[in-house]
Amino acid sequence: MEYITDFRWKKGIKVEEYVEQLGKVGFQSIELKNASDIVIKMKKAGAKIFLSFTSNMVTSGLRGFFAQAIRLGLANIIVTTVGAIEEDIMRANGEKFVIGDFDSNDVALYEEGTNRVGNIFVRNESYAKFEDLMIPILQKLYAMKPRWPVSEMLREIGLMINDENSILCQAAKNNVPIFCPAITDGAFGFHLFMFQQKHSDFVVDVVKDFANIVFSTTHDEIKGLISLGGSISKHHAIFACLLNGGLDYAVYMTTASHSSGSMSGATTREAKSWGKIKDDSDAATVIGDVTITFPLVMIRAFEELSKEGIVKGE
Amino acid sequence: MEYITDFRWKKGIKVEEYVEQLGKVGFQSIELKNASDIVIKMKKAGAKIFLSFTSNMVTSGLRGFFAQAIRLGLANIIVTTVGAIEEDIMRANGEKFVIGDFDSNDVALYEEGTNRVGNIFVRNESYAKFEDLMIPILQKLYAMKPRWPVSEMLREIGLMINDENSILCQAAKNNVPIFCPAITDGAFGFHLFMFQQKHSDFVVDVVKDFANIVFSTTHDEIKGLISLGGSISKHHAIFACLLNGGLDYAVYMTTASHSSGSMSGATTREAKSWGKIKDDSDAATVIGDVTITFPLVMIRAFEELSKEGIVKGE
Amino acid sequence: MEYITDFRWKKGIKVEEYVEQLGKVGFQSIELKNASDIVIKMKKAGAKIFLSFTSNMVTSGLRGFFAQAIRLGLANIIVTTVGAIEEDIMRANGEKFVIGDFDSNDVALYEEGTNRVGNIFVRNESYAKFEDLMIPILQKLYAMKPRWPVSEMLREIGLMINDENSILCQAAKNNVPIFCPAITDGAFGFHLFMFQQKHSDFVVDVVKDFANIVFSTTHDEIKGLISLGGSISKHHAIFACLLNGGLDYAVYMTTASHSSGSMSGATTREAKSWGKIKDDSDAATVIGDVTITFPLVMIRAFEELSKEGIVKGE
Amino acid sequence: MEYITDFRWKKGIKVEEYVEQLGKVGFQSIELKNASDIVIKMKKAGAKIFLSFTSNMVTSGLRGFFAQAIRLGLANIIVTTVGAIEEDIMRANGEKFVIGDFDSNDVALYEEGTNRVGNIFVRNESYAKFEDLMIPILQKLYAMKPRWPVSEMLREIGLMINDENSILCQAAKNNVPIFCPAITDGAFGFHLFMFQQKHSDFVVDVVKDFANIVFSTTHDEIKGLISLGGSISKHHAIFACLLNGGLDYAVYMTTASHSSGSMSGATTREAKSWGKIKDDSDAATVIGDVTITFPLVMIRAFEELSKEGIVKGE
Repeated sequence: MEYITDFRWKKGIKVEEYVEQLGKVGFQSIELKNASDIVIKMKKAGAKIFLSFTSNMVTSGLRGFFAQAIRLGLANIIVTTVGAIEEDIMRANGEKFVIGDFDSNDVALYEEGTNRVGNIFVRNESYAKFEDLMIPILQKLYAMKPRWPVSEMLREIGLMINDENSILCQAAKNNVPIFCPAITDGAFGFHLFMFQQKHSDFVVDVVKDFANIVFSTTHDEIKGLISLGGSISKHHAIFACLLNGGLDYAVYMTTASHSSGSMSGATTREAKSWGKIKDDSDAATVIGDVTITFPLVMIRAFEELSKEGIVKGE
Repeated sequence: MEYITDFRWKKGIKVEEYVEQLGKVGFQSIELKNASDIVIKMKKAGAKIFLSFTSNMVTSGLRGFFAQAIRLGLANIIVTTVGAIEEDIMRANGEKFVIGDFDSNDVALYEEGTNRVGNIFVRNESYAKFEDLMIPILQKLYAMKPRWPVSEMLREIGLMINDENSILCQAAKNNVPIFCPAITDGAFGFHLFMFQQKHSDFVVDVVKDFANIVFSTTHDEIKGLISLGGSISKHHAIFACLLNGGLDYAVYMTTASHSSGSMSGATTREAKSWGKIKDDSDAATVIGDVTITFPLVMIRAFEELSKEGIVKGE
Repeated sequence: MEYITDFRWKKGIKVEEYVEQLGKVGFQSIELKNASDIVIKMKKAGAKIFLSFTSNMVTSGLRGFFAQAIRLGLANIIVTTVGAIEEDIMRANGEKFVIGDFDSNDVALYEEGTNRVGNIFVRNESYAKFEDLMIPILQKLYAMKPRWPVSEMLREIGLMINDENSILCQAAKNNVPIFCPAITDGAFGFHLFMFQQKHSDFVVDVVKDFANIVFSTTHDEIKGLISLGGSISKHHAIFACLLNGGLDYAVYMTTASHSSGSMSGATTREAKSWGKIKDDSDAATVIGDVTITFPLVMIRAFEELSKEGIVKGE
Repeated sequence: MEYITDFRWKKGIKVEEYVEQLGKVGFQSIELKNASDIVIKMKKAGAKIFLSFTSNMVTSGLRGFFAQAIRLGLANIIVTTVGAIEEDIMRANGEKFVIGDFDSNDVALYEEGTNRVGNIFVRNESYAKFEDLMIPILQKLYAMKPRWPVSEMLREIGLMINDENSILCQAAKNNVPIFCPAITDGAFGFHLFMFQQKHSDFVVDVVKDFANIVFSTTHDEIKGLISLGGSISKHHAIFACLLNGGLDYAVYMTTASHSSGSMSGATTREAKSWGKIKDDSDAATVIGDVTITFPLVMIRAFEELSKEGIVKGE
């Protein structure tokens, strides 16, 4: 039996110690510490680790942190939505997103060519420049072959990027596949469509990529998942693991509630009814904004795992 | 200036009157009445109406209501996720989903072969039978041609279904395209993959389907959206309209909060910064479980529009 | 075993039928129908029914509906916060609250003397006039005696009000006590304080009122609770029932989540660990905005109970 | 213009640096960093600082952190609910709360005498022992005088407690008043009631305590508020400041949404319409579980303020 313990600040307290102590504070802080324990365990157990996230997180400064997680060897397979791909490429190309305000005048923003994502601003010109980037990229890919499974296409694009903080770049360098089941749902899709209008044999083969994610792991391998937010990124990673016997370790981090039966709000407990997560697995669901909670979970994991040489330190 | 008015029950009150009165109650009830007004306006204005929803809503009894909205001529274009397709086909095939409990013992459910979606139970055998259905369907499709845009494939499947309450059936009958940008993200994707293993030239052409959704409407047409829940269904419908100049009318209904910058929680106000929704459009965001709020919004719209002969009555 | 059933609109559908059908739709709609069943059962069983709500609901048009529930004999004991008392008195005095907008310019509102509660506006002058009302009321009360338990004070005030839609008026007329454990937390408290500055022996006896709520029911009586929102209104009603052996029937309706351990988000399931709700009780928790969900629950109950003559019809 | 910056872990990163970097990550992390800035500013400006919290936070390990904030001179006035008082006394008396599970079997917990608050367990015997403590305390108080304003009563109780981690103890030692507008809403209220049954002249004077909170600050003093959670604690602190001209600095931290018009979810923006927060004030609203976010906000404030000698270090 463990007891709730009064939290107290000590001068110079480190994030690692902070998260350690959160385990005895209460409510979501306990779940957060559990999530951190599970990440450490899954890595120590040699699990193949799926990391899924939604595009708003890549609009945020978590982008560089995801790239770092790949570089340090923590994540083995990425699942995300196409907005994440677009924004990673924009940022690698030098675009800057502005710290804005939730309570902006949105009509005024529109008139000045600024798009709002919560309290982050992305300018129209960032999308215009993205177009300039995409055309030569698609030409290069098409010159290689006309039919592309998504993850193979993203790997090739990653190899063209030279930015340490880029998810695509680090994934390509470290042989981490990126799956994106709805590749057409954004500006990227628009450019694919424009390209196909001129080259009708150009095909993005999403069915082949389903094979790729299923074959990215096996029934016998230990499997772990860190799922941030909801949407198809979350579902796709879970489903791929289900087809291989279910997850041994799972951490869900989301703001959504389970009360409406959505995938975004589905808990690790519900997942057990499906066999998505094994009965005897280690699993935790942490409710809260991942821009705050995810780095806390991971910093403690990195600190501990780097001490044991399981991930690289820096 | 309009005033808050004391709500009172009158014996035999109809849903239409109820929603009318909600407009003077407060908080989300006001937004709900606004949403209903906007649906009526968009239809009267002759807008092309996009209806987007997530798969959990098709697991629920909203499925038949979506089919009815298509049959009565309210929705012109559907955008959804693949789980919705799967469950619509299962239900058309006679599968029954059970009214369950949020607080179930999930490990026990797993052992008895029951999968939980909130407080709805779907049995494993429903998925097994789905497999039996899919194989001949894919064979028929392949016999016609090897390369299929998603919406064209779904239309063909819809034509094979004979169930008045089926979304696919009604959509096919009424020439309403169904877009599903992440077609592989579920059991349907698994069967596509198995089929492609044997027929390597079989391709699902998602890029061509992007052209289809873009060409499903034009810059000059008046455009309206009713978006339920979040995820790529919401984004895809909005993005297709943005490419054609933005929405004239928009109703978002969701349980998600805007506080984390997610697409699921993005409001109609934020959408204006992007030009997704025009400055001078009619737009409302209703927070709440759509299994309760969506029928309220729509029943009042159906009552009013059927009186004027704009949708069929029944 | 009951099955999810496709929902379909029928022309002229009544609220009663609508709620009936929601029971087979899914997610919160099922819980809502359960809540309605439980309200019917508690009344048929002859339970003493506690109704608790927060002040924002009385700012809304639910005010008249609460008054109606008291008048029709549905609620036997009311627990609320002082803002509800203030706004009921203001409204009885002819003040009108304006239908506003969540996305208002709050600084501009301040400058024009308008206070915002979500999308409802209350003008400063409503508070100024409230002061004019309170002074003679307190003088009358003080002339009667110097020491007042809260519920007895509110009963006297209710007897001075002549407004069919007033909660205080109907409660006084129908011998329904109103408990308000934090009577000083608002403008009402300010006027009590000003009055006590001049009359130092004037005392509001909250401890005596605790006796009153405890003695308002007994161990042997069947007890039911309809709790709307959270806060001390919810807790106070539950706690009073716990001291008398716990609730036999309970409906919680709230927007809050249980994830942070708050009372507002506490579920009927958690309540069972305390004995607040008996093991074998009928209990339901409905997540959503009560301005939409509460009337749905109650209209069906009123329709059914009035047919059987258990509540009055109208 | 400030830009979103890629977050990266550095070995041994401190909480202070972490929060600093959150300011450039996005969504709630930006708001959290703003909140931390505002706490630093309000203290440097010499503001009288109100700290309000709900009882569930004192069930958690934040209890000791609140006591520390008082001891270090950060909070000048406390507003809370009675559950917080009860649990602080229990803990000071050696009671231990157990780290539990949100997904417990609540009926089984009841049978073993365990009460659940989210994922924290409090045993029945803790309440039984609380009764043994309260009787002599009330006798001592009554021997001093029969009529007690709440904050004066809580101060006397605080002086009887010897526990560095106790909120009441530290508040009494440091002349920080604790206001609790609903003092009867819990076990404490029950014991007051039992005592008054025997001593009918025993009175808790809540009206006098309203005077005390109003006079605890003045129109001319700079005023700041850190409000955690909602409920009357939040409202009472804000209202007391409104009567003295409104707040110069305000930080709201909550899990509630503004969409239902509740006080718990009311934002600092809405507060400006009331003049609760001055137009030109510094204000931030942070959405999330305070067991995680509040220590982050405060640790950075403590680190910075202790460097400058404005609060004590340790």
